This record gives sequence, structure tokens and C-alpha cells, in this order.
Amino acid sequence: MEKVKINEKLNLFSDHWNPRIVGELNGQLVKVAKLKGEFVWHSHEDEDELFFIIKGELIIEFRDRQVILKDNEFLIVPKGTEHRPVAKEEVAVMLFEPATTLNTGNQYGEMTREKLDKI
Amino acid sequence: MEKVKINEKLNLFSDHWNPRIVGELNGQLVKVAKLKGEFVWHSHEDEDELFFIIKGELIIEFRDRQVILKDNEFLIVPKGTEHRPVAKEEVAVMLFEPATTLNTGNQYGEMTREKLDKI
Repeated sequence: MEKVKINEKLNLFSDHWNPRIVGELNGQLVKVAKLKGEFVWHSHEDEDELFFIIKGELIIEFRDRQVILKDNEFLIVPKGTEHRPVAKEEVAVMLFEPATTLNTGNQYGEMTREKLDKI
Repeated sequence: MEKVKINEKLNLFSDHWNPRIVGELNGQLVKVAKLKGEFVWHSHEDEDELFFIIKGELIIEFRDRQVILKDNEFLIVPKGTEHRPVAKEEVAVMLFEPATTLNTGNQYGEMTREKLDKI
């Protein structure tokens, strides 16, 4: 049982769209990631997903609108909801989601990360 | 589906040791709370509990050691682990835990908050 310093974890990697696992509780994972550019449209059939912004600005696009998130703000994307994260500049995020969650949800492809590192 | 600004939520109340619910996903609740002083020793039989520090310093005491948490740091307290949060000065925290979690765990008493407000 060790504390996790988010900023220290973020210094351990620099690639984008490749979440790292930093904690696990009650079958849920805590992840951190750096995002920049446009992700793929996708949804998660069975998992709600929480995006919490550590530093920067993240746009979460939906088919009919978008939500802009800044430091210390979060959004819960309900399961089954198509969404696409977009970051004009690099943004650091913390994610909370079930351990079963695949980053690209129902859109398996080149952005998919099946095995995530634990850091 | 609305974004949550943690700092705005924290401005809505000033009492200590009285968590508010700010989000729900996958049977888990996201809560915010202001803490100051010493809480009661307790454990949660079935729930792991995550403390994330928004602003300030929180000591989490265990029977054999303590962990000091600062901004952007978190600790997961595993179920069954006796702990006592202590804050010398006011600290603002975000909690992530199952919807079944009672703040005082197995120590029902005057600090217990059974019905939490959703803000």
C-alpha cells in the first residue's frame, strides 16, 4: 500500500493514447495517460468511463455536442455512448474505469492497447 | 451528462467530514469532502477506498505507520484495513469508492453520515 504521486507517474512516459495503470480497487482501474490529437470514435458497451483532467484541456466530442474539460474537472461517459476525445495540445488525464475496459471500446484497431503497463 | 468542476463543488459547502456525491459510475461513487482534525479509526469490510488530494495535506494513519498525501497524490486503502484520516489544516479530497461505503465503516457513531447529499 503505497501512495501514488500522479505527477511523478506522468514523468515516466511521453507517448500519447497509451494509458498506464497506477491503481486498482474494487475491480476498477485507475489509469493515467497523455493525450494529444484526435482519438477514434468509439463506445464501451458495458463500462462507464471517467475522465479527470490533471493538466491541460480535453475536448470530448459526442455525436450531437462536445464537452471541454480543464484542470480539476471530470466527465463520466456512460456506457454505450459514442464519444471521441480530442486534445489540441497535450493533456494529462486520470481515468477511472472497470478493469475490463479496452481503450478503443468497440473499435478495435491501431489505437487499441490491449496490455497496459502498470507503473 | 454534465462535466463536474471539482473546485466549484467545493465552494458549495464548508463543513468537515461530510462527503458529497458528485458522480456515479459502475456502482462506484465519486465524492468530495473537506476534512479537518482527526477522524475515527475504522475499516471497511468489503470496500477498497481511494483518497485523492485536491488541495492540502492529509495524513492517513495506520496502526503501524502513516502516509502523508499532498495535492495530486492518492492512496488506496484496501478493505479490512484499519485507518484514520487526520488533517492538521483543512484539506479538500476526492473519494472513489463503492456506493455501499459508509464513511465510518465498521464504527457507527456521531461521525457517521448515512445519507449523503448529491451536489
